Amino acid sequence: MHITDIPTPAVLVDTNRLTRNLSAMQAAANARGLRLRPHAKTHKSPHVARLQIERGAVGICCAKLGEAEVFADAGIKDIRLPYPLNPVNADRVFALAERVALSFIVDDPAVAFEWSGLAETRGRKLDVLIKVDVGFHRCGIDPCAPDAPGTVRAIAAMPGLRFRGLLSHAGHGYGAVTEKDMEAIATREAQTLRDLAAASGTRCDELSVGATPTARFSVRQDGITEIRPGNYAYFDRTQVALGAATWDDCALTVLARVVSRPARDRIILDSGSKTLTNDGARGFLNTDGYGAVLRDVHAAEPDTSLLIERLSEEHATVRVLSGETTLVTGALARVVPNHSCVVSNLVDHLWLVAGDTVVERMPVAARGRIT
Amino acid sequence: MHITDIPTPAVLVDTNRLTRNLSAMQAAANARGLRLRPHAKTHKSPHVARLQIERGAVGICCAKLGEAEVFADAGIKDIRLPYPLNPVNADRVFALAERVALSFIVDDPAVAFEWSGLAETRGRKLDVLIKVDVGFHRCGIDPCAPDAPGTVRAIAAMPGLRFRGLLSHAGHGYGAVTEKDMEAIATREAQTLRDLAAASGTRCDELSVGATPTARFSVRQDGITEIRPGNYAYFDRTQVALGAATWDDCALTVLARVVSRPARDRIILDSGSKTLTNDGARGFLNTDGYGAVLRDVHAAEPDTSLLIERLSEEHATVRVLSGETTLVTGALARVVPNHSCVVSNLVDHLWLVAGDTVVERMPVAARGRIT
Repeated sequence: MHITDIPTPAVLVDTNRLTRNLSAMQAAANARGLRLRPHAKTHKSPHVARLQIERGAVGICCAKLGEAEVFADAGIKDIRLPYPLNPVNADRVFALAERVALSFIVDDPAVAFEWSGLAETRGRKLDVLIKVDVGFHRCGIDPCAPDAPGTVRAIAAMPGLRFRGLLSHAGHGYGAVTEKDMEAIATREAQTLRDLAAASGTRCDELSVGATPTARFSVRQDGITEIRPGNYAYFDRTQVALGAATWDDCALTVLARVVSRPARDRIILDSGSKTLTNDGARGFLNTDGYGAVLRDVHAAEPDTSLLIERLSEEHATVRVLSGETTLVTGALARVVPNHSCVVSNLVDHLWLVAGDTVVERMPVAARGRIT
Repeated sequence: MHITDIPTPAVLVDTNRLTRNLSAMQAAANARGLRLRPHAKTHKSPHVARLQIERGAVGICCAKLGEAEVFADAGIKDIRLPYPLNPVNADRVFALAERVALSFIVDDPAVAFEWSGLAETRGRKLDVLIKVDVGFHRCGIDPCAPDAPGTVRAIAAMPGLRFRGLLSHAGHGYGAVTEKDMEAIATREAQTLRDLAAASGTRCDELSVGATPTARFSVRQDGITEIRPGNYAYFDRTQVALGAATWDDCALTVLARVVSRPARDRIILDSGSKTLTNDGARGFLNTDGYGAVLRDVHAAEPDTSLLIERLSEEHATVRVLSGETTLVTGALARVVPNHSCVVSNLVDHLWLVAGDTVVERMPVAARGRIT
C-alpha cells in the first residue's frame, strides 16, 4: 500500500526516522554512561517502547497510571511516573507495583508521609524521587527555599519509602530564545540538583533530568544519572525551531488533503484541531501558525509560503502568502505538527510508513488514558 | 455513585442541564417554524442525538463520514455533512446514502461536477447544498463574486445532483465583541443567503445557517429554513463569554483534583491539555486562561481568583490571583472548559451525572473519527 492510498487525514510515522532518532538518543546517553528512560507520552505505544528498550533504555516514563497499566500489560517491566500521584489512587499504585518496578515523584512532605503510611500498612516500600522545580514553576519543591534540604532529608527518612534521588523537568527550555539560553537552562538544572543533593547530605542514587530540547546539553553535565526525553522519538516543528532536530528528523507528519480552494490565496486542508490541536510552536525560528506544511508527500522541507493561520476542528485554513499556489482540490500535503505528542493522543491508530510505503497500522494503545 | 468517587480527571455532563439546553433550542426553532438540525460534533454521541430527535430535531449534522457512519449504525436516519467532501470518498458516500437520507455541501463547480458524474454513473442522485462564505472566510463560494449567481445556477442544474439550497456557517460570530456585533453578523448572514438565492433565480428549498452564538439572532431572520447549532447541547466558557449561555447552562465540566500545591499562589490540577486542550476562549467577557475553575464540586460560578495560566498535557498550572487559596492537595474542583466540543473528542467515555449523582458512563461513540 502506498501512502497516497491512506484515507485522509492520517497520522504517519516514518519508521526509518523513528529508529534513527531512537538510536541517536541512546548513543548520546551511552557515550556519557547515562541511563536513558524515555517518556512514553509521545508515542503511547508498547511497540515503540520495545524499540527503545531493545536499544538500551532502562525503562520508560508515563504520566498517568492508566498509561502505565497499558505498558505493564504489554510486558514493560520498569515504569517511572514523574507525576505527583495522589494517594487516592493507592489501590492502583500498589497493584501496579506488584507487576513492575514502579517509581514516582513526590513534591510535598504531607503527601509523601501519607504514601509512606499506606506502604507501611501494606508491608511494602514505594520507590520515590523528589521532584525539584528547576525553573519551570509547575510541580516540585523550591530548591531555593531554606527548608529544601530538610525536606529532602525528611522524605528520604520516611519508613514506607525507598528514596531514589532527585528528579527535574526543565519545561522552561521550551521558552529558550537562543541556543546559549538553552544550554544555560540545562547547566543550571544539573547544578541545582547537585547542590540540593549535597546540601541535604542525603544519598541520592539518581539525579534524573528530562526534556528533549535540553537533552543535548544535559548529557554533558556532571552528576546526572538519567535523562528522560520523550518527544525525540518523533520530534516536531517546535523541536526544529528549538535546534533539537532537523526537518529530516521529524518522523511524525499528518497526511492531509486539500478539500476546498475558495480563493486563490486560500486553501482548506482536512486536518483541523482534531488532528493537529491548537498547540502553538515555540523556538528560535519563525513559528507562526499551526504546523509546517510540506507541499507534497515527498517534500523535504516546509513550504514557507503556506501558513496555517487558523484551525477549526476539521479544517485547516491555509493562507498562501505568495498569493497563489499550484495545490488544487484533492491534492495531498503533509503537515509537521507543532507538537507531536498531542497528535498521537488524538488517534486510535497511526500509520507506520517507510518512505512511500505503508508498513503497518499501529494502535496508539495508551491513547486517552487520562487517569 | 457520588461524583466525588469518579477517578480524576473526568468529563462530566449534567443530564438536567443537557436536556434543558436541548429543549430550549428546540422551542426557539419551533417558535419560528424553523427546522433544527444540531451538529453532533459537540457530543459525538448517538444517545444525545436521540434526545435531540425526540424533541423534534429533523436530523443531525456531522463533519466527517466516519462520524456519520457511527450515527447511521446507531439508527439516525437523516444526516447532513456541512463539509466539502472530496470525491476520493465516493464509495463511502454512496454506501452511506443507501442507508440514510444523506446530504452534503459543495463549494467548487469542478468538484460538484465530479460528484454529479459519479452519481450519474451509479444511476443515483446526491443531495447537495452550496456552501456560501458569509464572512468567516473558510470554505464556501464568495457571494460577492460576479459569477456567484451563475455558480449556483450551474451547480443546481447538474444532472447527478439534487440541489437543496444554500448553507452557511457564521464562524466569525466567535469573534464578535458585542451583542450588537453578533446580531449584525446573524442579520447579514441571512441577508446574504436570501440575496444570493434571489439573484440566482434558482429555487432554494433550504437556507440553512448554523452556529450556537448567532442562533438566538438567526431564528428571527426571514427566509431561513434551518438552524444547525452544535455547542448548545453542552455550552462552555466561550458561549458564556459570547452571551449565548449562563454558567448554569454549562452542562459539561471537567472534574479535576489538586495534585500539587508547590507555592501559596500556585496549585496544579490533574487536567491538562489532554482533557481541556489548548483552545482559547473568546467573547465579550474576560477569557484569559484555559478554562474557568469552579472551586468545589458544588460551586455555581467560577472563582475568578483562580487562573489556569498554562496547560501541560497532564497538568493545569493555576495561579491564585488573590495570593492564597484554601484548596489543598487532594481537593476536587471543576473546570468549565473554553471549548466543550474538543473535550468530548478526547475521551472514550464521559460521565452523565444529575447534580451529585452519577447516572451512567456514556461512550463518546464517534470520538476520533477523523476521516
